Amino acid sequence: MSGIELRTVGWVRGGRGAAEDDAWDRETAAIELDTSWLTAEALQGLAEFSHAEIVFQFDQLPESEVVLTARHPRGNPDWPKVGVFAQRGRNRPNRLGVSVCRILGVDGTRLLVGGLDAIDGTPVLDIKPVLAEFLPRGEVRQPDWSRELMADYW
Amino acid sequence: MSGIELRTVGWVRGGRGAAEDDAWDRETAAIELDTSWLTAEALQGLAEFSHAEIVFQFDQLPESEVVLTARHPRGNPDWPKVGVFAQRGRNRPNRLGVSVCRILGVDGTRLLVGGLDAIDGTPVLDIKPVLAEFLPRGEVRQPDWSRELMADYW
Repeated sequence: MSGIELRTVGWVRGGRGAAEDDAWDRETAAIELDTSWLTAEALQGLAEFSHAEIVFQFDQLPESEVVLTARHPRGNPDWPKVGVFAQRGRNRPNRLGVSVCRILGVDGTRLLVGGLDAIDGTPVLDIKPVLAEFLPRGEVRQPDWSRELMADYW
Repeated sequence: MSGIELRTVGWVRGGRGAAEDDAWDRETAAIELDTSWLTAEALQGLAEFSHAEIVFQFDQLPESEVVLTARHPRGNPDWPKVGVFAQRGRNRPNRLGVSVCRILGVDGTRLLVGGLDAIDGTPVLDIKPVLAEFLPRGEVRQPDWSRELMADYW
């Protein structure tokens, strides 16, 4: 059996109300822990890091829009058809997002962040500190289409 | 309700058989897609990227070992007690891992990777290409203990 049951650790509060593709870096928001099972202790020490990695689910995307076949990123025919695991778009299996944001502060059970590309109300599944040692080892190589796609993203 | 049901997209095959903390970078392994619902098309174009980010679950860790309170990383009293979201260790809510590995190649429904810190049999929940634009914007700052912890990790 391949089902895995996870539990929301919190939710994005504030920031953008609807998914739009670009200019995310100016957004600020909070991640509020689910205090039915987590306390402020879970965030202790996180403010000593500059960045956090947030695992969340694009829950507003209908599961019927998940695509398993190759497609043009953002539907742009100028870019090649690539598989869903060669893209970072929303309509993917499990609808998981993983994004790095700036840590602005910790206030009790709220983590204040900047530049998180997740909308108000998004369920969060994990919060991890960014360690330089967990960044890619060796030079990052990527196709040209992905650089064009990201040109205005942040 | 805060439960989220996910479906395994594949499994780690090969590499290390048991969790050990250090020297992961010499490991090679494959991620085999679950072919009951995914095809080789899902990996199309991924080999044009140098690195992939893998979301997986530390399923061999008993849920009873998940810690929600602050603790010394790796139990080392020389390091400060920090919350579970200020660490990247296994015994965390949802037992999720997110790691960057090198892409060695794609062979049908198998993604060949180097330096993935997940053991043989680990269920995989997502595969994303690493785009330089999704790395931290701005300088990464982190406490000294985290650098000491990572000294021999890869």
